[in-house]
Amino acid sequence: MPIMMDAEALAVFMKDVFKQVADDFGIDHVSETDLTTRLLVDNRHLRPGGTVSGPSIFALADVSAYLMTLARIGPKALAVTTNCSIDFMRKPEAGVDLIAKTRLLKLGKLLSVCDVLVYSEGKEQPVARASLTYAIPPK
Amino acid sequence: MPIMMDAEALAVFMKDVFKQVADDFGIDHVSETDLTTRLLVDNRHLRPGGTVSGPSIFALADVSAYLMTLARIGPKALAVTTNCSIDFMRKPEAGVDLIAKTRLLKLGKLLSVCDVLVYSEGKEQPVARASLTYAIPPK
Amino acid sequence: MPIMMDAEALAVFMKDVFKQVADDFGIDHVSETDLTTRLLVDNRHLRPGGTVSGPSIFALADVSAYLMTLARIGPKALAVTTNCSIDFMRKPEAGVDLIAKTRLLKLGKLLSVCDVLVYSEGKEQPVARASLTYAIPPK
Amino acid sequence: MPIMMDAEALAVFMKDVFKQVADDFGIDHVSETDLTTRLLVDNRHLRPGGTVSGPSIFALADVSAYLMTLARIGPKALAVTTNCSIDFMRKPEAGVDLIAKTRLLKLGKLLSVCDVLVYSEGKEQPVARASLTYAIPPK
Repeated sequence: MPIMMDAEALAVFMKDVFKQVADDFGIDHVSETDLTTRLLVDNRHLRPGGTVSGPSIFALADVSAYLMTLARIGPKALAVTTNCSIDFMRKPEAGVDLIAKTRLLKLGKLLSVCDVLVYSEGKEQPVARASLTYAIPPK
Repeated sequence: MPIMMDAEALAVFMKDVFKQVADDFGIDHVSETDLTTRLLVDNRHLRPGGTVSGPSIFALADVSAYLMTLARIGPKALAVTTNCSIDFMRKPEAGVDLIAKTRLLKLGKLLSVCDVLVYSEGKEQPVARASLTYAIPPK
Repeated sequence: MPIMMDAEALAVFMKDVFKQVADDFGIDHVSETDLTTRLLVDNRHLRPGGTVSGPSIFALADVSAYLMTLARIGPKALAVTTNCSIDFMRKPEAGVDLIAKTRLLKLGKLLSVCDVLVYSEGKEQPVARASLTYAIPPK
Repeated sequence: MPIMMDAEALAVFMKDVFKQVADDFGIDHVSETDLTTRLLVDNRHLRPGGTVSGPSIFALADVSAYLMTLARIGPKALAVTTNCSIDFMRKPEAGVDLIAKTRLLKLGKLLSVCDVLVYSEGKEQPVARASLTYAIPPK
């Protein structure tokens, strides 16, 4: 089962469809079951003390599970998140990107399930973990 | 058990500590166990088709559970979200605020637990539900 | 939208299809959007200290969301839980039933979403909260 | 950071403290950050069609995260689950054990966080995933 969109195709699609946020994210690597993305951390993502805000971490996990799903089903803007569970475990480092490592656990006809580990770049211990379910639009 | 911060005190605190996002949110009502807040929906919260983005809905749920907790424990900037589970159930209406109705289910020494129902203003069916756990800083 | 199964029909269905566990549960009340059920607490549900086990509380939440969904869609044994998020907030009382109050938040074509508050009978503060998603089998 | 209880010590502790359920579970392997356990599937765990019940899968995830935490903090019966999010993704195979692969993502002073992937023995695709938070009793 090859991927239907590679990192470049995903980046182009994101710029087309979500231009408000496309500049926040980078796509490092994609395979059939794994995706590595990053939040290009900027002042607008920060909270007092230099830490990245919870909603910015959520946004990274959400876009990552979406892109992992699109990599397999092709460009469908209408896939929607139905559920996310997220644990915030450590304070992100100031001044570095956040890296999200996403695994595709299930790709069904109607639902995809991914889990995501989020790291401050260069650190071994995860900042957050999330699991997300996407509803895939019927053909 | 009276509240330690009313709606006005919460709004002042939010402007002090989270000035980047304080203008996004309004506080309609607070009691010992319930809080009503709103996302003052603006272009920056929208996705194609005029719908409010998932991260904006998450941010509303997150700030609501935080403010509900602070209403009871007083102004502690350091309370942190440890877990959130969120279900996205319906597409938000375009052009109206989102209203969050938060209930405090538990206020322990170390953890608070809230649930939140999010509505498009004027609608009966919820757009999303979330449950959140906050870690309360030790005295 | 009337219900398709009342409390008696749900109880009969449960005995037919899940006879291993049907005796664990009682159905107090059902309406279009709300269901009250109980775990008939017995020795086999207990952990040391007389408290009800986590898996027994999970089982009560799970069966409650299932029965709430069936009350609306009719007897479909094949509806399956796809996701559950549960917070354990207080230790259940020894020697009393657990009461589950379930709300149907969404009934779509493919998915239903419920939330459940679980109480020790006679107590005001919830023992646990859960939210569950069921996948509804296509017609 | 060595482990404080190995597989044998965990099994003995479980038999002492949770004798009602200790026979349901086996401990295959434990390290500082990983634990492999199994549900010794028996008739009492099954649902119609031979599939393992949701509460049995939940129980396996719950005991696994508990044992992973105890392996590091030593025998503390009072550690309690505060939150679990679980996704049921595939129907378990009939007639084989369920294998749970647990990773310790965080071990703090107050909370531990684990994630768990559950497989039918011999299969590559997971049946379920879960993430769990345990509250660690203060010293």
